[in-house]
Amino acid sequence: MLTVCIVGGSGHYRYVLEGLDERIQLAAYAAGSLGEDMGKLETMLAERALQVPRFGHWQGMLDTVKPDIVAVNSHFGDHARISRECLQRGIHVFSEKPVATTLDELAALRAAHGASGQHFSAMFGIRCKPWFLTAHAAVSAGRIGAVRLMHAQKSYKLGTRPAFYTQRESCGGLIPWVGSHAIDWLQWFSGAHFLSVTARHSRQHNAGHGDLEVSAQCLFDMSHGIAATVSIDYLRPTTAPSHDDDRIRITGTRGVLEVRDKQVCLINDEAEGPQTLAQLPERSIFASFVDQVLGTADCIVSSDDAFNATLASLMAREAADTGNMQRFASERDMPNRAD
Amino acid sequence: MLTVCIVGGSGHYRYVLEGLDERIQLAAYAAGSLGEDMGKLETMLAERALQVPRFGHWQGMLDTVKPDIVAVNSHFGDHARISRECLQRGIHVFSEKPVATTLDELAALRAAHGASGQHFSAMFGIRCKPWFLTAHAAVSAGRIGAVRLMHAQKSYKLGTRPAFYTQRESCGGLIPWVGSHAIDWLQWFSGAHFLSVTARHSRQHNAGHGDLEVSAQCLFDMSHGIAATVSIDYLRPTTAPSHDDDRIRITGTRGVLEVRDKQVCLINDEAEGPQTLAQLPERSIFASFVDQVLGTADCIVSSDDAFNATLASLMAREAADTGNMQRFASERDMPNRAD
Repeated sequence: MLTVCIVGGSGHYRYVLEGLDERIQLAAYAAGSLGEDMGKLETMLAERALQVPRFGHWQGMLDTVKPDIVAVNSHFGDHARISRECLQRGIHVFSEKPVATTLDELAALRAAHGASGQHFSAMFGIRCKPWFLTAHAAVSAGRIGAVRLMHAQKSYKLGTRPAFYTQRESCGGLIPWVGSHAIDWLQWFSGAHFLSVTARHSRQHNAGHGDLEVSAQCLFDMSHGIAATVSIDYLRPTTAPSHDDDRIRITGTRGVLEVRDKQVCLINDEAEGPQTLAQLPERSIFASFVDQVLGTADCIVSSDDAFNATLASLMAREAADTGNMQRFASERDMPNRAD
Repeated sequence: MLTVCIVGGSGHYRYVLEGLDERIQLAAYAAGSLGEDMGKLETMLAERALQVPRFGHWQGMLDTVKPDIVAVNSHFGDHARISRECLQRGIHVFSEKPVATTLDELAALRAAHGASGQHFSAMFGIRCKPWFLTAHAAVSAGRIGAVRLMHAQKSYKLGTRPAFYTQRESCGGLIPWVGSHAIDWLQWFSGAHFLSVTARHSRQHNAGHGDLEVSAQCLFDMSHGIAATVSIDYLRPTTAPSHDDDRIRITGTRGVLEVRDKQVCLINDEAEGPQTLAQLPERSIFASFVDQVLGTADCIVSSDDAFNATLASLMAREAADTGNMQRFASERDMPNRAD
């Protein structure tokens, strides 16, 4: 049986708790960031009657427990440093996104992964929702032909966020934190790679959240002449029926597919008018991670996908910060800045 | 009573035919471009039992008829030249969009307008649809607060287009022809002006239409930190229930408004969950043009809006052609390149 430790309680630790099965045991947990609030994680552990020891220091936990896997979800600015040390210790890492909040940290993390031979992936768990799995299967099966345009949307309610969201250093910003999901969808659905990005973001009207941007738009130029835009906001009204309004519309040479309101709508030459697709069952992203560690199946989010979506998010943030277009290296595999 | 002549039969001459009233008489028509097909216009005239003389040359028509207004809708590359001559003759001009297909022609047209004192406007007739009028009234009334993000969509069926669509010189391209509507919405809904644009377009999979692009994405940076994207395509499947799929989603500080499927959906603090708005009646853009000529009301599309939307469309096309961001002058009024 594999053992997993959780470092941090600020992200999607629930993917681990919901993905536990007979192959894997939760061994211990610890905060990953100074002053990190672990209360919500502890509540969820109690609700699930999981009696798991808490360590005062995550490095001490690793020394003692020697886990096979670490799930990292600290304050976002600490992900890369923690993940890198875990990889250097020979531990597989399941990291919250963004897996790094600076380009230099991302390069160092990627280098550490390359040297480690361990599995590394990111918590792009929205891929595992039935509507996204179904949409992806339809596009992969060629039901809209060749992808030409994509527009993705992430719209969230802001509410009152923890203090670490209000600083760029600890949070990373709107595009990497919220937008990276949508940026990951672009590469996942199209199979294309990123060539350049232009973006805009704004902190105006952020309800006292310091550095945090609450609105952004990105334009990605991708291989094969594919163009993609991403709209990201924290302005979803409190009266909206859900926290999030995740969408993607993909225009292909043979049809158009949309994910909206947890439904998948397809228009192509198979039928007159729009079809609503029957959905595949939800998957567990953590169970998929464990599959790859055990060698039984590929993880739904490859290491390259985790790194490339993060790179694209950080390049988009840089484009928005500077007002200038950022160009990616033309190679399929993104450059390792530490090389 | 005012008299109007139509030059060309390649655009939305129907706005004139549908907008005729007791104030205005259709006096004559002529082709505006070499080899222009006037068959559809003539069919519509016959259907409406409008017996109107056709002239062999549009300039000869102007010499003879001396109309108060000319509606220009020739091959798109000829709009600016015809409109400029009309303005120089002291005639008000109701032009198909794009009002020019090159930046130099646009500047010359704008200068001719400035010197003429005549009214000039563009056929941005989608503004007059009930769903767009309703959406605009809601945004103008502050029901979503301050505009922060916009995403507009134009998606059309391609079918088989006339030959003049297949050349950049005569057509102008996808972004100016189809996209200018959506680009006009951005300025109309937000009241903001354009600061820069990045764009991509592609001719791939254009079904033998020569130069014509069939997919495009644009990102506009606008004043007040507003960011806007526009998705444009000719890839709407033949099995789709309508020719066009026009949309806009506008995210504000107090709510989100969407136009989709000819409906207007609003989420804000007025009610729990989404509201579908009761719609205002359709207007006639040509009747609104005549209002301004007669001094009874402002035209729904001002001359500045007509010029600025065209400028933004041509700058977006330039951005897509070159792959480089294009920056607008920072002045509220766009520069006149002929000055």
